Amino acid sequence: MSLSENLEQILSPAKVSQNKTILEQHSHDESYHTPKMPDVVVFPESVEDVVAVVNYARAAKIPLVPFGAGTSLEGHVVPVRGGISVDMSRMNRVLDIRPDDLAVHVQAGVTRLKLDAELRRHGLFFPVDPGADATLGGMASTNASGTTTVRYGAMRDNVRQLEVVLADGSLIRVGSRTAKSSSGYQLASLFVGAEGTLGVITSLWLRVYGRPEAIVAAAAQFPTLDAAVRASTTMVGAGVGVARVEFVEAPYLDAVNRFRGTSYSLTPTLFLEVHGSEPGVMAELALAETIANDEGCLAFSHVREEEVRNRLWEARHNALLAFMAQYPGHRHMSTDVCVPLSELPEAIRHARNELDNLSVKGAIIGHVGDGNFHVSIAFRPEDEEESSRVEEFGQRVVTQALSVGGTCTGEHGVGIGKRRYQAQEHGDSLYVMRAIKATLDPFGIMNPGKLVDP
Amino acid sequence: MSLSENLEQILSPAKVSQNKTILEQHSHDESYHTPKMPDVVVFPESVEDVVAVVNYARAAKIPLVPFGAGTSLEGHVVPVRGGISVDMSRMNRVLDIRPDDLAVHVQAGVTRLKLDAELRRHGLFFPVDPGADATLGGMASTNASGTTTVRYGAMRDNVRQLEVVLADGSLIRVGSRTAKSSSGYQLASLFVGAEGTLGVITSLWLRVYGRPEAIVAAAAQFPTLDAAVRASTTMVGAGVGVARVEFVEAPYLDAVNRFRGTSYSLTPTLFLEVHGSEPGVMAELALAETIANDEGCLAFSHVREEEVRNRLWEARHNALLAFMAQYPGHRHMSTDVCVPLSELPEAIRHARNELDNLSVKGAIIGHVGDGNFHVSIAFRPEDEEESSRVEEFGQRVVTQALSVGGTCTGEHGVGIGKRRYQAQEHGDSLYVMRAIKATLDPFGIMNPGKLVDP
Repeated sequence: MSLSENLEQILSPAKVSQNKTILEQHSHDESYHTPKMPDVVVFPESVEDVVAVVNYARAAKIPLVPFGAGTSLEGHVVPVRGGISVDMSRMNRVLDIRPDDLAVHVQAGVTRLKLDAELRRHGLFFPVDPGADATLGGMASTNASGTTTVRYGAMRDNVRQLEVVLADGSLIRVGSRTAKSSSGYQLASLFVGAEGTLGVITSLWLRVYGRPEAIVAAAAQFPTLDAAVRASTTMVGAGVGVARVEFVEAPYLDAVNRFRGTSYSLTPTLFLEVHGSEPGVMAELALAETIANDEGCLAFSHVREEEVRNRLWEARHNALLAFMAQYPGHRHMSTDVCVPLSELPEAIRHARNELDNLSVKGAIIGHVGDGNFHVSIAFRPEDEEESSRVEEFGQRVVTQALSVGGTCTGEHGVGIGKRRYQAQEHGDSLYVMRAIKATLDPFGIMNPGKLVDP
Repeated sequence: MSLSENLEQILSPAKVSQNKTILEQHSHDESYHTPKMPDVVVFPESVEDVVAVVNYARAAKIPLVPFGAGTSLEGHVVPVRGGISVDMSRMNRVLDIRPDDLAVHVQAGVTRLKLDAELRRHGLFFPVDPGADATLGGMASTNASGTTTVRYGAMRDNVRQLEVVLADGSLIRVGSRTAKSSSGYQLASLFVGAEGTLGVITSLWLRVYGRPEAIVAAAAQFPTLDAAVRASTTMVGAGVGVARVEFVEAPYLDAVNRFRGTSYSLTPTLFLEVHGSEPGVMAELALAETIANDEGCLAFSHVREEEVRNRLWEARHNALLAFMAQYPGHRHMSTDVCVPLSELPEAIRHARNELDNLSVKGAIIGHVGDGNFHVSIAFRPEDEEESSRVEEFGQRVVTQALSVGGTCTGEHGVGIGKRRYQAQEHGDSLYVMRAIKATLDPFGIMNPGKLVDP
């Protein structure tokens, strides 16, 4: 019997596909990495289905790649060695909402926006927002974060417990539903960010939060890149309770203005948001404005109504789309370094200089409250000369970040694209990571060619 | 040559001791567990010393037990199979304070109060406060937490990077100095809470915070245990920005009154603290008081000056001492379960009932904002009948907590005392923990007989 016939027998024909369009959909994510078709796509509908697929894959020594919404940015879901793409989208039930525990239990295929819609009815929200409507299982697998991480943390900080199918077919629960635990080794933090290389996440208990009583958003324009970045790091250092503090470079704003018909001043800008009680948010905002003014802020405006706030954040969220729209036929690559806060102004200055030096088409946007920034680059992979300049640029940005105690990826994850930096960043601890991988997945069937694979 | 002669040659005689008093000091922690003398105590003064001791111990197949301040509560530092006690107290330098990064780099033997004194000069503080003046290496090893964890998290949340000597003698760095990272497997969270069973922590980069502009403490008295606990969980659920919310049962307050000459009403009481900006703290406090009144609060008072606040917290911190002072010749045992918030009232009620049913001398105190509470028990280990009732009590408390999604230890760690519950709590993931242990420490020299050891 063929691979797909075997899987059809194990799962049922309705859960298995070799349709060309389906295979193509599972050959890539949203990054520039070279697509590769899986041999087959399966759509498990239960934990038992996942266990059955894993047991088959292990016995047959066939690679297995978990697939969420396909929104990753470093080729995480590309089946580089073929095999089975395990599409989790049918495991999309919100299993339990516990407002009194500030916790929710979801299957791995639930997407962020679906969860938000369900939580809203209970006056709750889940804070991790990577932009895309990713699945929670995928977000856990890359330790995703985003604009609100400066206040609420990344996925690792908001995952309480995971249910995982290991390569040997066993189903385990890791972590604890409690707010804290000192029992056993903390395996949940190991599976968060493991990119499907240690097992398939099937469900998650997540920490959720009451929706804040008051939210206020603000935009602050600065004369220079340095002033904007320094203002952001000072706000965090001074303990201003910002829930978001995002830096957007002028080239991005220019693109947004053209794409959306807005009229942002073409100066380095911080977009801010403060969450809290009514008197609390106004006090925090006043402090933020004082710090901004100390850095020569040109204009500081704030908005309160949800609709107006959403419009302001749309500018931030659509920045990438607008930027790329200027370059038809180009692919997108994003750097993702994160550095200690004090190193951020120099790291961003360095990136801007290198963009100019290498004539790379790029713009800088950043979760600057965390020391994390992206350089979004438009390029044509088929243009070898341009590609090599882009490649050179990416290396310089990472090398600079690592030299000051930074990391090659703050939130996108390693996937294919950041594998080359793992030895440089982690030194001998990379061997420990590989030893753990070999222990849990001795036959290397779990998303091979990613993360710590040589 | 003897064990100590070998170590003297490797390290120098001044760093090795077999003095009876020294051996005795390293035979126990602050718990009721049976002491056992190490064969020798070493006092490394550098990472190289630690590597040399580990290499010797591995070659000779001799157990190795890292020792901080000896303040652990589950026998973590007891060398149950003899061998070398590695006293880290001479590695006590604060290596680097970086206010702009909100980060500090310390050797593992630095104690909490020493760090606090150094940070205070920079307007900073490190929030994790387990009560005892433990070493930071020890606190990381047990994933310690305490009264402020409801706001600032446990050790795992505040460790950025660790330097660790593995059983094979290699020195690795795990984690990242940045606020977040998605690079590689998150090994820092694995070594935090590993209780020295995976390696010896030699230095730590920790997250620190600016000292709050305003701090206000409060005490709230309630008619019943249930009302007090419900008020605390409601405060957390409603997002009141409490930095501390501690429940203290009447028997504790009675002991404090007798021991310290105070005059606390003998009713279930919450001790609270709020940190923030001047207008912020008063708003949060008002919200806390409203919630307390909804639960029938009998009296709500707050204090602001540091000295008066300290006196209030002294009552909380001295509660255990005062409680034990009532029972001369008794040893102390503490339960440490943590449950989902909604389960806390029932878990505390259950514990109180079982104390009464089994005629165990105990009182309840809790970090109730995290769902974590302790029953402090006074007993005489030489009284077999009493010991078996205490044992029975501990098991009932843990079994109840596990049955509602709780953990057997919220902050003390597993050590010797909670080993028996690991299979029940973790199921098959215990085998994964053991596989990781076997991979990193194949000869079992690292603090054997603890945590995941069968």
